[in-house]
This record gives sequence, C-alpha cells and structure tokens, in this order.
Amino acid sequence: MSHNSFGHLFRVTTWGESHGPAIGCVIDGCPPRIPLSVDDIQPFLDQRRPGQSTFTTQRREPDEVRIESGVFEGLTTGTPISLIIQNTDQRSKDYGEIAHTFRPGHADLTYQMKYGIRDYRGGGRSSARETAMRVAAGAVARKVLGNTVSIRGALVQVGPHGINRSHWNQDEVRNNPFFCPDPEAVPLWEQYLGEIRKSGSSVGAVVEVVAEGVPPGLGAPIYAKLDSDIAAALMSINAVKGVEIGDGFATAAYTGPDNADPMHMEGSRIAFESNHAGGILGGISTGQPVVARFAVKPTSSMLTPVPSVNLAGEDVQVVTKGRHDPCVGIRAVPVGEAMLACVLADHLLRHRGQVG
Amino acid sequence: MSHNSFGHLFRVTTWGESHGPAIGCVIDGCPPRIPLSVDDIQPFLDQRRPGQSTFTTQRREPDEVRIESGVFEGLTTGTPISLIIQNTDQRSKDYGEIAHTFRPGHADLTYQMKYGIRDYRGGGRSSARETAMRVAAGAVARKVLGNTVSIRGALVQVGPHGINRSHWNQDEVRNNPFFCPDPEAVPLWEQYLGEIRKSGSSVGAVVEVVAEGVPPGLGAPIYAKLDSDIAAALMSINAVKGVEIGDGFATAAYTGPDNADPMHMEGSRIAFESNHAGGILGGISTGQPVVARFAVKPTSSMLTPVPSVNLAGEDVQVVTKGRHDPCVGIRAVPVGEAMLACVLADHLLRHRGQVG
Amino acid sequence: MSHNSFGHLFRVTTWGESHGPAIGCVIDGCPPRIPLSVDDIQPFLDQRRPGQSTFTTQRREPDEVRIESGVFEGLTTGTPISLIIQNTDQRSKDYGEIAHTFRPGHADLTYQMKYGIRDYRGGGRSSARETAMRVAAGAVARKVLGNTVSIRGALVQVGPHGINRSHWNQDEVRNNPFFCPDPEAVPLWEQYLGEIRKSGSSVGAVVEVVAEGVPPGLGAPIYAKLDSDIAAALMSINAVKGVEIGDGFATAAYTGPDNADPMHMEGSRIAFESNHAGGILGGISTGQPVVARFAVKPTSSMLTPVPSVNLAGEDVQVVTKGRHDPCVGIRAVPVGEAMLACVLADHLLRHRGQVG
Amino acid sequence: MSHNSFGHLFRVTTWGESHGPAIGCVIDGCPPRIPLSVDDIQPFLDQRRPGQSTFTTQRREPDEVRIESGVFEGLTTGTPISLIIQNTDQRSKDYGEIAHTFRPGHADLTYQMKYGIRDYRGGGRSSARETAMRVAAGAVARKVLGNTVSIRGALVQVGPHGINRSHWNQDEVRNNPFFCPDPEAVPLWEQYLGEIRKSGSSVGAVVEVVAEGVPPGLGAPIYAKLDSDIAAALMSINAVKGVEIGDGFATAAYTGPDNADPMHMEGSRIAFESNHAGGILGGISTGQPVVARFAVKPTSSMLTPVPSVNLAGEDVQVVTKGRHDPCVGIRAVPVGEAMLACVLADHLLRHRGQVG
Repeated sequence: MSHNSFGHLFRVTTWGESHGPAIGCVIDGCPPRIPLSVDDIQPFLDQRRPGQSTFTTQRREPDEVRIESGVFEGLTTGTPISLIIQNTDQRSKDYGEIAHTFRPGHADLTYQMKYGIRDYRGGGRSSARETAMRVAAGAVARKVLGNTVSIRGALVQVGPHGINRSHWNQDEVRNNPFFCPDPEAVPLWEQYLGEIRKSGSSVGAVVEVVAEGVPPGLGAPIYAKLDSDIAAALMSINAVKGVEIGDGFATAAYTGPDNADPMHMEGSRIAFESNHAGGILGGISTGQPVVARFAVKPTSSMLTPVPSVNLAGEDVQVVTKGRHDPCVGIRAVPVGEAMLACVLADHLLRHRGQVG
Repeated sequence: MSHNSFGHLFRVTTWGESHGPAIGCVIDGCPPRIPLSVDDIQPFLDQRRPGQSTFTTQRREPDEVRIESGVFEGLTTGTPISLIIQNTDQRSKDYGEIAHTFRPGHADLTYQMKYGIRDYRGGGRSSARETAMRVAAGAVARKVLGNTVSIRGALVQVGPHGINRSHWNQDEVRNNPFFCPDPEAVPLWEQYLGEIRKSGSSVGAVVEVVAEGVPPGLGAPIYAKLDSDIAAALMSINAVKGVEIGDGFATAAYTGPDNADPMHMEGSRIAFESNHAGGILGGISTGQPVVARFAVKPTSSMLTPVPSVNLAGEDVQVVTKGRHDPCVGIRAVPVGEAMLACVLADHLLRHRGQVG
Repeated sequence: MSHNSFGHLFRVTTWGESHGPAIGCVIDGCPPRIPLSVDDIQPFLDQRRPGQSTFTTQRREPDEVRIESGVFEGLTTGTPISLIIQNTDQRSKDYGEIAHTFRPGHADLTYQMKYGIRDYRGGGRSSARETAMRVAAGAVARKVLGNTVSIRGALVQVGPHGINRSHWNQDEVRNNPFFCPDPEAVPLWEQYLGEIRKSGSSVGAVVEVVAEGVPPGLGAPIYAKLDSDIAAALMSINAVKGVEIGDGFATAAYTGPDNADPMHMEGSRIAFESNHAGGILGGISTGQPVVARFAVKPTSSMLTPVPSVNLAGEDVQVVTKGRHDPCVGIRAVPVGEAMLACVLADHLLRHRGQVG
Repeated sequence: MSHNSFGHLFRVTTWGESHGPAIGCVIDGCPPRIPLSVDDIQPFLDQRRPGQSTFTTQRREPDEVRIESGVFEGLTTGTPISLIIQNTDQRSKDYGEIAHTFRPGHADLTYQMKYGIRDYRGGGRSSARETAMRVAAGAVARKVLGNTVSIRGALVQVGPHGINRSHWNQDEVRNNPFFCPDPEAVPLWEQYLGEIRKSGSSVGAVVEVVAEGVPPGLGAPIYAKLDSDIAAALMSINAVKGVEIGDGFATAAYTGPDNADPMHMEGSRIAFESNHAGGILGGISTGQPVVARFAVKPTSSMLTPVPSVNLAGEDVQVVTKGRHDPCVGIRAVPVGEAMLACVLADHLLRHRGQVG
C-alpha cells in the first residue's frame, strides 16, 4: 500500500509540490533492455505543458525532464527509473491570500482538515502540476507496451458543447489547442472558452481515451479488473468526477440486445460487430479497443467571487487571482492517455507473471 | 497485490465459484473487540438474496453465512474473519450449452481467452454470486464504521426510466422489490420490468449509494484518493460500466460558479450550501454525505438470441436459458452499499494510522 | 498489505484458530491449467501431522484437506484456491487455566497486550496449528515450480546435538521421526528427547531447507531480494528466532577469499566450486542450490513451572498441561520446506512478469 | 508490491546507482506536523559516510542530503518526502575491468543473469551506496517514533574476534572507527583490520541493533510479525547472510526453562527477569528492548585474486582494485539502526490503524 504510488509490477510513485524545488517520480518494475531516453518522454510533457494558448494557465515552465537512474547506455536496466523536473516559475507571491482562505471546490480545505497543515503555495501537493509526472511515467509505459499498442485521447465535450462524433478526425486532435477531434467544434469552443475566460469563470469537460492493439486477456478479476484499475487511475486525476467504460452510463438505458456485441468468426479470429463493452468483459480485455471517458469539473480557482470561509473561521468572499486554466479538462487529455498507458503496462506484466 | 482482494488495513479476499461447494471471504485487519455475530451479517445477505420477486433470478438459496474464525465469545479478536456460505441450489445441468458457447457481453469469453480454461457452471468465478461475500464483508465494515456512519443505496433508474428525485422517500426503498425511493415510479417499473422479463430480454439500471456521517479527512491522496478507491470498488461489481461522484458527469457542463459548493460558518462549524462535490474534495472527505452512482449494464444472459461463436470456432446463435436476473441492477443495490462501507472502513483505519 | 497474507503474485492468506471450527487458506494468483488434487497436498500434511510419534504433540487429527474453489475438472483455473481443514480434536477443556495465565515465552501475553482480547483455546490464532495451511499452500507452490525444482528439509540440530554433515543421507530423513539426515544421530536424539519429554521440559532445534534446480535470476532487488523474502517467510514460522542463508553467521568470521565461491566455465555454463552464498547473490538466485537454516526455540508450553503473571495482575507459577511438542522444531521441517516453496513460486511469477 | 520499496504505512522507496548523477528516496505516509529539517538527517548520514578512517572505503563524498518535498515551513505535511543526495566522486575509470568480469560473491553476476544488462560502474544499483538513503529514511523514522524510543547499534564481532559483553560501554561506540562498544576490543580490531586491509583481503562482521522504549503491541501476526519484518529489512542490507532476534540461534540449544523469560508484577506493570526473546513474542513487541543481530559477509571486492569468469565466457582471475571497505560490516551499523527504525515506525502506524 502506498498513498502516492499506483500499479503493482509497473509501479509509479510521484512526489513534489507545485512550488517546491522540483517534482519527480520513481518507476519501479520496468522491464530491462528497453531503449529509453529523454526524447521518448519530453514530447508528451510538451503536449501537457501550460502556457501554450490563452486557454490554459499562463504559468510558463519548460518542464524539462531528467532521467536520474535506471537507464544505462540508453537501455533500461530493470532498476528504478527516477525522473525529475525542476520547478522554475513559481511566483509564489501570487498566492498570498490563498494561504488563509479556502476556495470552494478545492482540495485546500480537505488537506487542512486531514493533515492540520498544508503547503498552500499554488495548491502544493494537490496542484495539477503533479500530473506532469503521470505524463512522464505514461511515456515509459508506452515503451513497455511497445508499438502494437497505440493510445490516444481527445476532448469530446467542453461545458455543454459536445462534439459530433461523425466528424471525428484523429489528425485534427493535434491541430487545435483543445485536443478536439471535430474540426467544426473548434471555432465554437474557441469562442465559448474565450468568453468563459474573460468573464473570470471556468468550465468542465469530458475526455475520451482509447487504447488500440491491447492483447486479449489483460485484467485480473475480481478486484484487479482492468476496468476497475482504469476507473481508479482516471478518477485519481485532479478534478475528475466520473469515469465510464465503453458505452458507460448509456448502458443503463439499454436492453440486453442493445448492449450485446455480436460476434462471428473471421477465419480463426473472433470478430465483434460493435464495441459497447469498450473492450473489456468481466474485467478482462477482449482484444477490441479499450475505451474510457472521464468528466472533469470546472476549475475551482476563478475570478468569480464565491462565499467561503477562512482559517480564522470567518465568512469571506473568495476570488482567486493568479494564473489558472479556464478549462482544466483540456490539459487532462495527455494525462488521461498516460494513466491508461500505465494501467495497461502494469496489467501486461501481471498477466505475463501469472499466465506466462 | 492480490487479484481477489481489496482494501489495505481493512482487507477483504473472496473465493469461490457459482457452482462449487461454497463461497467465502477472509476479512483481515478488522479492529479487535467489536461485537459481531451472524445476526449482524445475515440481514444484509437477505436483502441481496435471489428469488425474492419475479424480477430477480429464481435460484433459491438460503445464503446462510457462517463465521469460521476471528470472533471469540461474540467479539472480534483482530485476527482474520473467515465467512463461508455453502452453495445449495446449483442445478448445474441448466448450463450444459454454456460450456461450449460464449454469450456476447459475458465474461465467459474473456476468462477463456485469459486462462485457457474456465469453470463454465453458472459463470464460475465471474458469477454475480460472488457479490454475496461483498455484502457479508460490508456488514462487518459497517460495524467498524460504527453507528455514526449510515450507508444507504437506492435504484434511481431502470432502463430509460429515472426516478423523480423530488419524490425521494427513503422508507419506500425497503417497501418494493426494486429498492426504489420514488413510490410513483414503482408501478411503472413493475410493468416495464414485467414486459422485459416476459420478452426474454434484460435491461440496465443506475444505483445511487450515499454514506452519511463520514468524518472529514478520509482519503489518501494522490493515488489512494477516497473517490479513486470508491470508483475501483464500484467498477469491480459485475456488469458495472460507469461510476460517478457527486454531480459526476453533469459537472462537465457546469461553470465554476455552478460547481462550487459555497461555505459559511455556523458557529465553529463549516456549513456547505450544496454538495455538488459528493462529499469529496482532492480525494479527501469533507464531512458532507459521500454520494456515488454507478451504471449497471443489462444482463448478458437472456432468452433473446444473439449471434456469437463457440469453443470450436463456429458461428452460433446464443440463447441463455436457466434462471437469470432481468435487471441485475436491482440486486446491485446492497452490493454497492457494501463496497462503499468497505472502502470507508479501510480509509478510516488508514487515516487513523497516518494521522492518529 | 495484509497481516495474514504473504507473497505477491503467488499470494497466500491463512485464517483460523486452533480450536475454532476449521482452519483454511486462500491461494491467489496460481497459474491456470496446472493439474491439482487433494492427492498433491495431503502427503505433505501427513508429514507435518501431530501424533505420529511420542516426540510430537499427542493431539490427533486426520487433517484432511478439502479444495473448495479454484480447481475445475482437475486443473487450476487461475482463480483463488480455497483450502479448508476441519478441526476435529480440540478438547478445549485442557486449556482452562491458560485462559487467565500467561506462559512466559508465549504469544498469549502479546496478543492480549495488542488486541485486549485473545482466543486462549489452544493458543488460538498463535497456535502452530496454523502452519498446516502453510504446508498445504506449499504443496500447491511445488506444483507451480514444477518438477525441475526440488525442495527438501532436515533437522540438523536438536538442543545441543548437531548432526555430523559427513553422514548426510537424504533417504534417512523420512526413516525417523525427527527428519534427521544422519543415521548415527537418530538414537542419540531419541534418547535425549525422551528424557526432555519425561522431565516435562522442551528443547530447541535447527532446521535446514534446500531448493535444488532453482533457475538463476529469481529475486527482486533491493527490498524484495530472494533472501530477504526467505528470511521473512521462515522468521514468520512459530518459535523461529534466527534465519541464515548459505554459510550465514559463519561468514562473519570469514575472510574474503574464504567466502568467495570461485567460478569457472564448463562448456557454456558457469560452474561454482563452492556454495558459501547459499545460491543467492545480491538478492538474486545464482542457479546453485538455495540453502537456508532457521533456529526454533523450545516450546514455551511445558510441565516445568515458571514464574509468571495472570490477567488479574498477580504473580503465579505457570505449568502447562495439555498436549505439546517437546521439540516443535521437528514438525517445523515440512513447514520450512513449504515456506521456501511459496517464496520461490512467487518470485518465479514475479520474475516472469518483469523480465518475461 | 514494489521491488524497491519497503514498509506499508511508513513506506520507503529508494532509487539511484553508485555512479549515476544522484541517489534518492521517497518516504510516503509520514504523519503530518512533525518538525523535520536536514539537520535531523545529516548527522546519521555522517556516521555512515565513507572515507572517515582507513578501515572504510576511501571514496570521499560529502553526502549532503536535500529535502525536495513533503516539508513546509519546517513541518512534515503528510505528503511524500523526497530526499536526494548528489553523487560527486564517482571516478568511474577505476572500474574499467569490472565491466566485463564477475567478482565471485558479488551481485554483478546475478544482475547480469536476471536482467541481461547491468550498470557496472561501482556496482550500479547493487552498490552499498544505496544504503545512504536507508540511513536518511531511518532518520525520518526516528522522528516518527519520537523521543521515547531510542535505537542504537554496535559492531559485536569482526572476523573471529567478538567483543566481551561484560565490557559493553555504549559511549565507547562513537569513540572509535568501528562502532565497537568494548574499549578493550578496539586496539585488537585496529591491528587485525589493518593487516586484513594491507593484505588486500576483507573480513565479515556481526552487528547488533537494539530499540529501547518500544511500546508493547507492535507487530501484525501472522505474516507481518515484527520479527519477520525486521528479518526482511536487515537481510535486505548488502552482504547480510543471517539475522537473529534476541538469543537467536543460541535458543536451539536451550531447554524450555532456559528460554523462558520469567515475569512478575511490579506494581501494575509486568516486569521481565530476562530478555531471551529479544522483546518479541508471537511477532508482537512485549515492551522489552527489541534486540536483533545480523551477520555481514566479507566484501567480495578485494585485491586477492579469485578464479572467475567473464562476459565472454572465459576463465579469468579477478582482482578488484578501486576503493573498497575491508570490512563492510562497520558501516552497516548505522544502516541496521535505520532499518530497525523504519520497521518500527511502520508498525507503530499500522498498530494505530488497526487497534487505535
């Protein structure tokens, strides 16, 4: 058990606060002799990096990752891989007021309740900055999974505005600041989010992540089901309030025949005629694409005032200045991909351990 | 790590197949000197027991639990509590065809893919029968949580038919075979489910579980967040495809002010004006009710034929006779309550361990 | 984490008290499709069974194991294997005085200190009866390890009387009631232990366990080293006070050249000229026999009176009637073998998981 | 499960290679609001630091630890504590030959066997340099244990030369380069080790560690017994080949009355008349001093040539130049203390979690 670790055979432990000297992670259990360099990791960090458009926080950090252990002459050695990113742009004076005031909807309150102390600078440990290390670990997980597994994410809803799934164009995802797969939604979102930002508000979103090429058999029933571990991994991302697999909550309204994914043989291979199950049955992968979605609530740090309380036990109105994401869901896309990659890498090793 | 265990300080391991001689669980880490007898456990098992209405499987078993260890002179001793239920009504001949044929949407296929073998009798290990032990463990967890924490569940949607939340009447939940809190929805569901059953079909559902009286501070960020562990626990229940906390997926459409739960002081206590967060912020309980919902897909075992394949690699039409729940979501209500109880008990002990 | 479980991919959880209705274990993570029946387990239990000579406790139980789950048509299915032995000869009246009095050197005292309650009947959970389930699990572990790995144990010292290692005869081990490999030591031990027993005393012993055919590469440095896990497993056996690997404590007096195991090539294979290391270097198996020894203290339950205290806080003289082993080290031989088998099976799967 | 972590509620993960850029550890689960600064940690690192006498390796590094997270304004926050030491004196050219040759008795061989790759520079991950992070973590564990628990270690045997226990003087331990508690043994060891060093050999040793003030009740039977976890922790230290608790292996020769620690009441308190048990019964602390000893084999890196093999599969004679400890047992004293501190801190939190 560990509070700040996840995975079992491919195990990730993260550490660090938003405004401390650095953040880092330790990846334990990575198979040996996998080629790995900073160049395998940095591109994913760059996708998550803040300050790249007006729709994400204006904090600017290069987020340059260093490999401190576990790699020798360009290959993993099977020993722990330590990754570190120095924090360079903390500007902690921005957060003076936050030291004594609780933002409704923010972890500040509960860290104080639990521990009786908190590093209030930039949210400390509860800051979304921690997700940079998830992205770094996810890049290593992709190397473990190899080229036959491909993982991709997209933003499919911003506030009330969903995409039109018939417009899905995967190449479009990297062409706009929203990871949006629907070219027609982009200008609408641009206008909508611009208004949200200008009004000092924020908004929620839905992210979809898909893994293709996952071999059948991954997942360890009953309590280490693949979907159970994916749910935990995605729910652990800051601000996430819901997770679903395949058709998810929609299946509640289905009848059995609606929900069944009919099968037939194509040569010696089982072919599925649909994928309502999202690639997982009984907690075990079927070989179809693994599909998950998660809902991200609006940023609780915003310029709009909200009634709240402070450390002294007084009623106050909270207004959060500083630099914040009007829609944290955007930058959650690479984070969700990374978490999915880590869960799959762990289950790949676990399956190999038990079944060979 | 263990495939068939969950929790850390309050840890539950289950074993057993649908048609084996018995099913059981081992609960490790239970605090000592808690009064515990079969009478604390049996009532919860009775709520989950099949065969109580035409809307659940007609398999009839008394599901009488025995305590085999860990209790001495009516008190827990701090050593492992072993609970066992004998299987008495297996009728394994009902399942002859299932031995060689895969039901679309069922774990039969993936167990075969993963292990190269499966106990096909009644679904073997993947049967919902395993959830009886979750309910038993949940009853013990409630004793650990004590009287100040109360956990209740309800069915809030059957197929396309949701309840009207303004009709919520908690007493009604135990008055109808659906755990439905809306008296006006009951006759509608009765008719709807009767038709589903007669047509040989099945249907999905949504379950809501709520824990009141949870102390603030439970949950261990970052990767053992309370919501993360709840998500894993609920997603591990058979047929669950989605989990949400508080307002869940609806928060994606919210703005920041919509989502914030304003606070003010009432004497020396923080009072919240709403509970969109479902009682959890930053993975830690706030002291408000912990609220979670989960979607249960329709039973994949049904009389309606679906195209599928068999072990011999041939195309077939699958029709599942035998005794099945037209809506497994109904009996998932006590199971969801139990899983929530277990997660909270574990986090209560973990919090006490770290913070005192 | 779990108090009553060990191992990770091959994970064993035990439950049950000496005088409860039954004892049992759950083995999780066993690979699928391994032939397994009661006949694979019972012979090992029979070796450990009490009442077979005057040198072990006169409690008589058949210790017949039942497989309650995880095996289908003679093959493991990859799901949890539940093993149960009914307790049949508890005679709990023998232990009346023990209910309120603490035996010096016995766990009664510390269970009471820790939990504020204890099942005093026959030592409850702390009874050596629990080790029957270790032996059962070890039998399953041997199946996982396969025929190329052979595990054997022997008693190499009883009280002050060690064997002469030049007399080692492995066949002799099953020919005498002591698991003694030195035929010349047998009559000496027989006389010595007879006297110990008659005088109402007890005595310690040293057990040696060896695994041959262990492939190189097992063990996961730094904190899951093979020797570290063996040390924990053997130290967890009742009454064990010391564990050593290879030449163990003797190496403290060695110089570097004494301790080195010289190597040379034999064809394409590395040959070692000695095995001071006991088959483990840096926590990883070398391919040589894995050798461990452990010291078992004398039984604390004996007829010789010892000054002690009781629950009421009074000074008393303790005399333990009932049926006890004059030398618990004897029956620790099959237990030590079983623990070694379980650790090796777990590491075999873990190694396969990480390295393939 | 994690290969490079230990502990459960107080959990330590280490990373780093001897000649990489840095070594570090992450401590997860530390209680909040404990005063902690570098000054609490550095003195223990200084005790272990090499280059302080001619009897330890001449590698010279300041081993200055940095706290990178988990401490805010001088207090722990309950979030992960990241500690890092830069490597500054690697001199990797010293190890050229070691790149292709295996030292008998060294982990080089088995890392290569297991992973098919190794960082050969200074032993890479298998170097005793890793133990610096154990010492750092141990310093934090001492803060968790508080002032009422005191942990001290001493070297009690070097090669064949044991101390005279009747000379034990705890103050002497810090007065000589051997952590020797017997003033009369010091000159003897000085001469003996001087000769060993000059002859290019090395020698083993025995370390004793004691924790006083440990509250009764720590330890979680059956498989997380306090002695079981101490055995694993000490056996995981480089070059350790044996561990014993209390009178350890000597108890094998004891009779029951020899071994029993008689008790009587002193007022309302239980007083023990001896401590053969080393403060642990049934895996649970009694309140007496916890006593453990471990055997450290001689350094395998030495100038004396030994027959061995190389990566190319050729027979060679190995001579290890470079800077090595003639007796690694000396510097194992602060490491053993640290491991004992970590195990006790973990069990203190675990006990509080379960029993309150």
